[in-house]
Amino acid sequence: MARIVSARISDVRFPTSLDASGSDAVNVDPDHSVAYLELIADDPEWPSGFGYVFTQGRGNDLAALAIEIVVGLLPDEDLERMLDHLGEIGRALVHDSQLRWLGPEKGVAHMAAGAVVNALWDIKARRAGLPLWRLLAEMEPEELVEIVDFSHLSDALTREDALEILRAGQHGKADRIAELERDGFPAYTTGPGWLGFSDEKMLGLVRGAVEAGFTMIKMKVAGDLADDRRRLGLARDAVGPDFRLAIDANQRWEVDEAIEWLSHLHRFGLWWVEEPTAPDDILGHARIREAIAPTRVATGEAGANRLMFKQFLQADALDVVQIDMSHYAGVNENIASILLAAKFGKPVVPHAGGVGLCELVQHLSYFDYIVVGRSLDGRMLEYIDHLHEHFRAPVEVVDGRYRLPSAPGTGAELHPASVRTWLFPDGPGWRDLRERGLVPRPQPSIVEHAISADADERVEVTA
Amino acid sequence: MARIVSARISDVRFPTSLDASGSDAVNVDPDHSVAYLELIADDPEWPSGFGYVFTQGRGNDLAALAIEIVVGLLPDEDLERMLDHLGEIGRALVHDSQLRWLGPEKGVAHMAAGAVVNALWDIKARRAGLPLWRLLAEMEPEELVEIVDFSHLSDALTREDALEILRAGQHGKADRIAELERDGFPAYTTGPGWLGFSDEKMLGLVRGAVEAGFTMIKMKVAGDLADDRRRLGLARDAVGPDFRLAIDANQRWEVDEAIEWLSHLHRFGLWWVEEPTAPDDILGHARIREAIAPTRVATGEAGANRLMFKQFLQADALDVVQIDMSHYAGVNENIASILLAAKFGKPVVPHAGGVGLCELVQHLSYFDYIVVGRSLDGRMLEYIDHLHEHFRAPVEVVDGRYRLPSAPGTGAELHPASVRTWLFPDGPGWRDLRERGLVPRPQPSIVEHAISADADERVEVTA
Repeated sequence: MARIVSARISDVRFPTSLDASGSDAVNVDPDHSVAYLELIADDPEWPSGFGYVFTQGRGNDLAALAIEIVVGLLPDEDLERMLDHLGEIGRALVHDSQLRWLGPEKGVAHMAAGAVVNALWDIKARRAGLPLWRLLAEMEPEELVEIVDFSHLSDALTREDALEILRAGQHGKADRIAELERDGFPAYTTGPGWLGFSDEKMLGLVRGAVEAGFTMIKMKVAGDLADDRRRLGLARDAVGPDFRLAIDANQRWEVDEAIEWLSHLHRFGLWWVEEPTAPDDILGHARIREAIAPTRVATGEAGANRLMFKQFLQADALDVVQIDMSHYAGVNENIASILLAAKFGKPVVPHAGGVGLCELVQHLSYFDYIVVGRSLDGRMLEYIDHLHEHFRAPVEVVDGRYRLPSAPGTGAELHPASVRTWLFPDGPGWRDLRERGLVPRPQPSIVEHAISADADERVEVTA
Repeated sequence: MARIVSARISDVRFPTSLDASGSDAVNVDPDHSVAYLELIADDPEWPSGFGYVFTQGRGNDLAALAIEIVVGLLPDEDLERMLDHLGEIGRALVHDSQLRWLGPEKGVAHMAAGAVVNALWDIKARRAGLPLWRLLAEMEPEELVEIVDFSHLSDALTREDALEILRAGQHGKADRIAELERDGFPAYTTGPGWLGFSDEKMLGLVRGAVEAGFTMIKMKVAGDLADDRRRLGLARDAVGPDFRLAIDANQRWEVDEAIEWLSHLHRFGLWWVEEPTAPDDILGHARIREAIAPTRVATGEAGANRLMFKQFLQADALDVVQIDMSHYAGVNENIASILLAAKFGKPVVPHAGGVGLCELVQHLSYFDYIVVGRSLDGRMLEYIDHLHEHFRAPVEVVDGRYRLPSAPGTGAELHPASVRTWLFPDGPGWRDLRERGLVPRPQPSIVEHAISADADERVEVTA
């Protein structure tokens, strides 16, 4: 009988703000980072499990502490039994009676629950010798519904609804697996579209993306209307009238401003508009969607939880469900969202990029296609060619399509050397950058922690 | 010229789970706690400012670290100038380009921004020699709108709308101040209604609350329908037909379950139903509200941000706006919500209780009455007689009404002895409880932190 005896937690940050890669109208200086967890069993026969919270730099230490607190909630019991009850364990972590006050079901404590849940899934998949997508695809509908937290969902999706969807998904499963293994899964790219690229650089990358076989190109917008028009005009001319071109406003606009701004971009034939306004604004998205139809609305990468997706779907406020492995409570909550999307007939196109998000979330798109959505209509996986070299099993994209991974696990494992080098703040990578004056030396903190109480002080408490 | 030179942060937890005070259908074992901040200036002429994030125990250390990170975002500049620009500073803390990924505008990072904002308001009010409510009431409309973050609000509330409301609120201000100082502000109490009290104890407390002059009694429900019926029947008989009786389900129900359950409680004449379902479920609340009218729906204590209130109001999903000084980004965001409520003609009745929430939030109800809502119709302040003794300036409730405080500041300051005694985990109060076996000794943690990089290891980074 194995047990988890150690949880190794690392604050790993990559200095991506130095070259502004990944920057957009809102995320102006991201240092793509992970609060990285390794769960270790006492039996060396058992594989470690890896999971993380992705962040933009500041606050990665907060995510690391959140993971530490959530790890403290794990039961000290037979690991085999735990892996058979990942739904129950996930619900216990998400709804902890004290910690839930910091949400409930939102913010960094919620993301940390996801990292821990995902690390357990990593162990489960490695133990089974299967990549996560295949493990999920082989599970019975009755096992899969146990993963889902139906609380507060039942007015939109019941256990019975989910079972019906999953049972229908068993038909033709083997064919769809064979098809994906043969053809891969369509990818789109955000690579050419970052703000701050010159028109020449952008156009070169756009042409390259079309030649590379990508299904769609996504351009960042919402800095300046004249720039958006010029860049989208150039891009549309370069790709021709039928190629999918989407835009991403990264939450920048007011509701009415979005409608007005988009009225000027409509003629570039946009596949979707992503995050036109605040990610919590369901009713705002519904108004925007109605005003800009038939242009699609996509959102989800910064959503709070499955209850927000429920309402976005109920309110007809989106067309594309952008699940995310880091903003939500891991595999469990994302499967809930995939089932919700299926119930409402909307495609799931995950948010990826950052660091390691492609590696993780690809599994859920394959699972969705094989067992839930069963269609490629409007389905894609986001791809950005960035930071994959730090992963043991980096994603493989060939001719604009993801190749299905066969390595056991979720894909979350980093190379130990990458963890060591970019440990924040004292890893050798960071030390080197500071010595070369490329990143500032840390300011002396003004924070004092409360002095530990004097051990001689006694109080008699009458509680 | 003064500057902030120190931020003292303490993890203070009160062992309230020992006697289950404050427990309800969801919060079963709360240890009411504060991640407590003192901002200290370099000039001894300047007062310290206090603020905190309230939590239920676990995660209080996370809130403390979040405050530490947010404090690191404060500009190192003239304190006088900072206090003149608390709107600008609040927006910078809430929308930090990296930290916002952990929300945006939700979870513990958002609450921490509130604690820091509130500590600055505490300095500003002390420096002016005024309690917060009077400081706010004396500010000009043009100064007050500068506090508000109108981003993503403009489809419901513009700067011009807010100015109009605040300018109208200048008329008769002196009379309303005089009235409140003479008569106090109506309070309601949750004291008698906790689950787990025997019927006898509950009835004794209900009768006591009526005699004490409280305006309303709130009962916890949603554990068991038969219990709810019996307890509400007894309480209604005790208070007579005209007394306000409200219930609080603490998020327990599914949407349809709420409607069904409440159909059995309707006949007890309920003033409001609080948190019938998940706090993020705007559309669910709208459906419940429509089904149970004319019973009111109240929510907000666990909301994410002002954008959720915007939508609850737009969707006609609530009747009572329950602002909170700890779930939101402090004075600034709560003033935004007060203005939103006024725009939609709904009363603000803050969430209080916990530890210190009454002390803080009372100021905003007075401000609302004096300058914004200008009516007592449906307005009250929640009161629970619990943990006030730890505060330098505890609230004073006489004949069921809050007396307006005159002490300068926000009321957030704890007695230093309380901080010292209940410092977690090693304050003498906690040590004593552990020695007496009343709280368990901490489990050895399984967490290892990543080993600091070897100082001799060199890498040449090509960034």
